[in-house]
Amino acid sequence: MSVLLEFSMTPLDKGESVSKYVSRSLDIIDQSGLPFSLNPMGTVIEGQWEEVMKVVKDCYDKMNSDCSRISCMIKIDARKGKDGRIKSKIQKIETILNKDLNK
Amino acid sequence: MSVLLEFSMTPLDKGESVSKYVSRSLDIIDQSGLPFSLNPMGTVIEGQWEEVMKVVKDCYDKMNSDCSRISCMIKIDARKGKDGRIKSKIQKIETILNKDLNK
Amino acid sequence: MSVLLEFSMTPLDKGESVSKYVSRSLDIIDQSGLPFSLNPMGTVIEGQWEEVMKVVKDCYDKMNSDCSRISCMIKIDARKGKDGRIKSKIQKIETILNKDLNK
Amino acid sequence: MSVLLEFSMTPLDKGESVSKYVSRSLDIIDQSGLPFSLNPMGTVIEGQWEEVMKVVKDCYDKMNSDCSRISCMIKIDARKGKDGRIKSKIQKIETILNKDLNK
Repeated sequence: MSVLLEFSMTPLDKGESVSKYVSRSLDIIDQSGLPFSLNPMGTVIEGQWEEVMKVVKDCYDKMNSDCSRISCMIKIDARKGKDGRIKSKIQKIETILNKDLNK
Repeated sequence: MSVLLEFSMTPLDKGESVSKYVSRSLDIIDQSGLPFSLNPMGTVIEGQWEEVMKVVKDCYDKMNSDCSRISCMIKIDARKGKDGRIKSKIQKIETILNKDLNK
Repeated sequence: MSVLLEFSMTPLDKGESVSKYVSRSLDIIDQSGLPFSLNPMGTVIEGQWEEVMKVVKDCYDKMNSDCSRISCMIKIDARKGKDGRIKSKIQKIETILNKDLNK
Repeated sequence: MSVLLEFSMTPLDKGESVSKYVSRSLDIIDQSGLPFSLNPMGTVIEGQWEEVMKVVKDCYDKMNSDCSRISCMIKIDARKGKDGRIKSKIQKIETILNKDLNK
């Protein structure tokens, strides 16, 4: 079962600008070697359950090292027999609409 | 760091009535021994990261055994030096408002 | 179509303790007159789309008055021909499992 | 207050393949004229609260016309004095890491 997982993780004790902490997570995600896609509200990664959850845990451990309250949202779409959906889900919608949706 | 985790997990290939599958998850949660609280939109459990994530994984493995597409939402609130928040968060709001909010 | 809506709304610029702001939202929710249920991770309300969204908007307007960054999560479950699900969804699971899940 | 809103909306009574319904929503979003960005797990739109919520409501009304159970997730990040964040949030992370994150 291939898993698409989107998540965002934010410290609540560091004020309203948190890009320093988000950047550290993105560095961990990038080094995981899993396919990922950053969007304005979170990051989508693709892999097996254990693989994608390990990345989230690594980001949590890092944030846990110097933050005292952490908020995290995770959204998962798991589907049997389908890989590469990090690209194909968008392409399928574009094909149906016959439109390029990310100009 | 104590973690409050709320999650809901739903098969997308079993039609609009999914209580059979939700019940199986609740049975797994109940048997985990962790404090939990069921609400109309999900279940909140409390524990360390590894503990609460193991419960979610166990529910996923069970659903994965006979469902071909699974959607899952997870919301996490982790806070240093605070245990028992599964009860105390609600009590704090009720104290501030001087009202019983779950009549 | 009856809507169950769970939401949580948090300022990001007020430090890690935000119960003052959450309490104000609960007061607005309570005064809306809609059925609601507070849990450790959010509040579930039931009504028509316009009704439940108005409550969320009222909470946002209040928080907007003195906060400069706001994070909000909304989860919706809408189902035709079913009212009173704020109570019946939990009861159905308890009936299937033949267990009281909120001891 | 400029709002970034990410949402996904799915019928639960149409089987595991729902791209037909997602496409209809994307068409509504595209015609709204608001800046948007499609990702593998949802769509991010930017505007004022009333503007972005109207788009979500229009998608709901369409799905409501022929679906009997609808699940919807909405995530909001509202911040004073900042527009154009649908592009700038990603750029800021890339600048901090000195890396192009969407190869």
